[in-house]
Amino acid sequence: MSELNGTQKAVRWHPPSYDVRVDDIPIPQGHSGVHDVHICGHEFIGEVVALGSSFGAESAKGRPPLYSRLEVGHKVVSPFTVNCGECSVCRLGYTARCTGSLLFGSPLLNGGQAQYVRVPKAGGTLFDLSEPSTWASSMTETEKEKALSNLSDSSLLMLADILPTGVFAATQAINHPKVQPFITGKPWPLCFSSAPVPEGLQILDEDKVFTVAIVGLGPVGVCAAVSLLDIVSTRKIPFRIIAIDPNGSRREKMKAVYGAIDEDGKAGGEFVVVSVDEAKQKSKEWTHGVGCTAVLEVVGNTSALELAYDLVRAFGVITSVGVHQQRPLPFTGGNAYDKNVSLDFGRCPARAMFPPAFDLLVKRQDIFGTIGQPASLIDKIVDFGQAEESYRAFDKGEVGKVLFDPWK
Amino acid sequence: MSELNGTQKAVRWHPPSYDVRVDDIPIPQGHSGVHDVHICGHEFIGEVVALGSSFGAESAKGRPPLYSRLEVGHKVVSPFTVNCGECSVCRLGYTARCTGSLLFGSPLLNGGQAQYVRVPKAGGTLFDLSEPSTWASSMTETEKEKALSNLSDSSLLMLADILPTGVFAATQAINHPKVQPFITGKPWPLCFSSAPVPEGLQILDEDKVFTVAIVGLGPVGVCAAVSLLDIVSTRKIPFRIIAIDPNGSRREKMKAVYGAIDEDGKAGGEFVVVSVDEAKQKSKEWTHGVGCTAVLEVVGNTSALELAYDLVRAFGVITSVGVHQQRPLPFTGGNAYDKNVSLDFGRCPARAMFPPAFDLLVKRQDIFGTIGQPASLIDKIVDFGQAEESYRAFDKGEVGKVLFDPWK
Repeated sequence: MSELNGTQKAVRWHPPSYDVRVDDIPIPQGHSGVHDVHICGHEFIGEVVALGSSFGAESAKGRPPLYSRLEVGHKVVSPFTVNCGECSVCRLGYTARCTGSLLFGSPLLNGGQAQYVRVPKAGGTLFDLSEPSTWASSMTETEKEKALSNLSDSSLLMLADILPTGVFAATQAINHPKVQPFITGKPWPLCFSSAPVPEGLQILDEDKVFTVAIVGLGPVGVCAAVSLLDIVSTRKIPFRIIAIDPNGSRREKMKAVYGAIDEDGKAGGEFVVVSVDEAKQKSKEWTHGVGCTAVLEVVGNTSALELAYDLVRAFGVITSVGVHQQRPLPFTGGNAYDKNVSLDFGRCPARAMFPPAFDLLVKRQDIFGTIGQPASLIDKIVDFGQAEESYRAFDKGEVGKVLFDPWK
Repeated sequence: MSELNGTQKAVRWHPPSYDVRVDDIPIPQGHSGVHDVHICGHEFIGEVVALGSSFGAESAKGRPPLYSRLEVGHKVVSPFTVNCGECSVCRLGYTARCTGSLLFGSPLLNGGQAQYVRVPKAGGTLFDLSEPSTWASSMTETEKEKALSNLSDSSLLMLADILPTGVFAATQAINHPKVQPFITGKPWPLCFSSAPVPEGLQILDEDKVFTVAIVGLGPVGVCAAVSLLDIVSTRKIPFRIIAIDPNGSRREKMKAVYGAIDEDGKAGGEFVVVSVDEAKQKSKEWTHGVGCTAVLEVVGNTSALELAYDLVRAFGVITSVGVHQQRPLPFTGGNAYDKNVSLDFGRCPARAMFPPAFDLLVKRQDIFGTIGQPASLIDKIVDFGQAEESYRAFDKGEVGKVLFDPWK
């Protein structure tokens, strides 16, 4: 690591709040402690410039494959949290809650808005784009490599958080037991068995429509919508999707993204983008007052959860990937019982979700591969000289997602 | 219905509270209104003595099969709620939340502790034991009929609520997406696909053990335990079950029930019956501090939910079939996010759950078919002359489940 001594440029968060500056700081070496001033950014991709002492065939025996396969020069995506890949939690795929998990860009772990980033437990954490055989995919190895060669760096950055989180929300909802009558076309609990449905117990075609609300159309909400459309159109599940945001520019973005998806990718259902009041009306109209079978809550505040509860049907599911604070839930135990409601909370296990997110990234390059277009999720790429101003503009809602190129 | 004019005996609830009396009242005729004094009991079986005008081949076209098949003399079990079987909610199997649902034994609908009971929407509500072909089962028609001839009336009463509710709790947990890595032996999200698991991502045998806590060992909790044991032993899922109740006599009952199950029916795992404090210790010990993958909450109060939250692992599921009141949930949105917890609330769709509950009833006659034994869920059967005293004794915890025979 001799050539990596010295200083680098990094975007850093200065306490107490919202004082973001580009600073010259030392390149990270080995293990680091906790800093009061810390580097921002929980989404980053990069190229391996040095490997810690855990790497190499000798010490890597019985450890995650990357400890023996990762090499300097490989291109990698990092999930937004560290995960060891070696504890029981990680092995089960629940990487977001690895017992040694830390969040990048937090006071406990410097983030990715720097020229050099130290990734703890890197053999478990990183997604190695130079070793396509290490991840499951619907693509062949040749198809993966061809796809990789066509993906821009900005496109790959979607994998760090927003795309796997969107896929996670959709995956949880579609696999929930209370949703299975809609997926299998068989009533509960026959939906879990291979037994035939007795005469007179058949579900009608009109009952089978999978009605879903998406609350919040920021980048993750848009990714959840794209993932959900991909799943229902591929699996030919009749659907109705109500995409909701109080913010007009977010609704316009969602409409443009929906418009950019080819006809096959949204076949078999209806999709509307609406405000909160319109959503309640649409849900009533489409479900004859029964409510939505699933609600994806992608905001993380009390009013979003409250809306989700209002919209969900009895025996429906609320899948919440929003980051919630220590506030009371906006419904009682009695409310939850009376509606037979199910709730899935929590952080996306991004590392585990990379393979299906990668497949979707490749499939939807018309959205994820573009910059500054109406359907793009990235507004622009700037250098560190514009970083401080970009934070200010984002905070005021003047720009959407802005990427930093630390080498520009 | 001419022979059904006159009066009958019934156990009735006199407001304001706990004043239970056996009264002589008119036999119900046609539609009835709301009474201040109402008949108790949401669990009952019976024999059809008269059919309403909706029944018969002519008017039954396109309606649930019972409207054309049910006949005077048929033996039936009623679920604890009315369900029409004809709305979209019922067709999906979510019978507990039928749009026209009413709870038997409530001020809105007289219950089953009478000699004659009027069952609204009976063609959708009742489970017709005389027509085994109308329900799906792992048994053949001949096996079903043979099983039926061996079942006592007291045994069949289990089907009205407690057994389907226990099966419902276990069914929800075993089918939850967050539980699938344990069931399939593949990490999330590969557990949902047929794709092979790449090298280095295999789950170890020790990770696959499905650890479940059952909070509350009343009759429904015991039924949930019996159902869960049946599912995991049949499907050969390695398991550890922690059955919890603060009440010593309930723990003794659970131990006796576990003892009555044959070795095949509990093979492949461990099962302990413990107090609340012991449960926390056992969960720590068995899961190395990670927590239980699923918690079945079968009590319906705040402290039971609080214990369930304490016991559940990150990315675990709490399946709550307890009846909750309008009290705040004992955890914040942040708690739910931080633990990636899933919650399933609500009332069992008993009518839809009858077929699997019936299969289990037949299989576990050593428990459900006995009376007054250590492993029995029914303590005794009495006549209406002992009904008032039985309510008093039950309220004081002096007896467990007592059945009334209104014709004795």
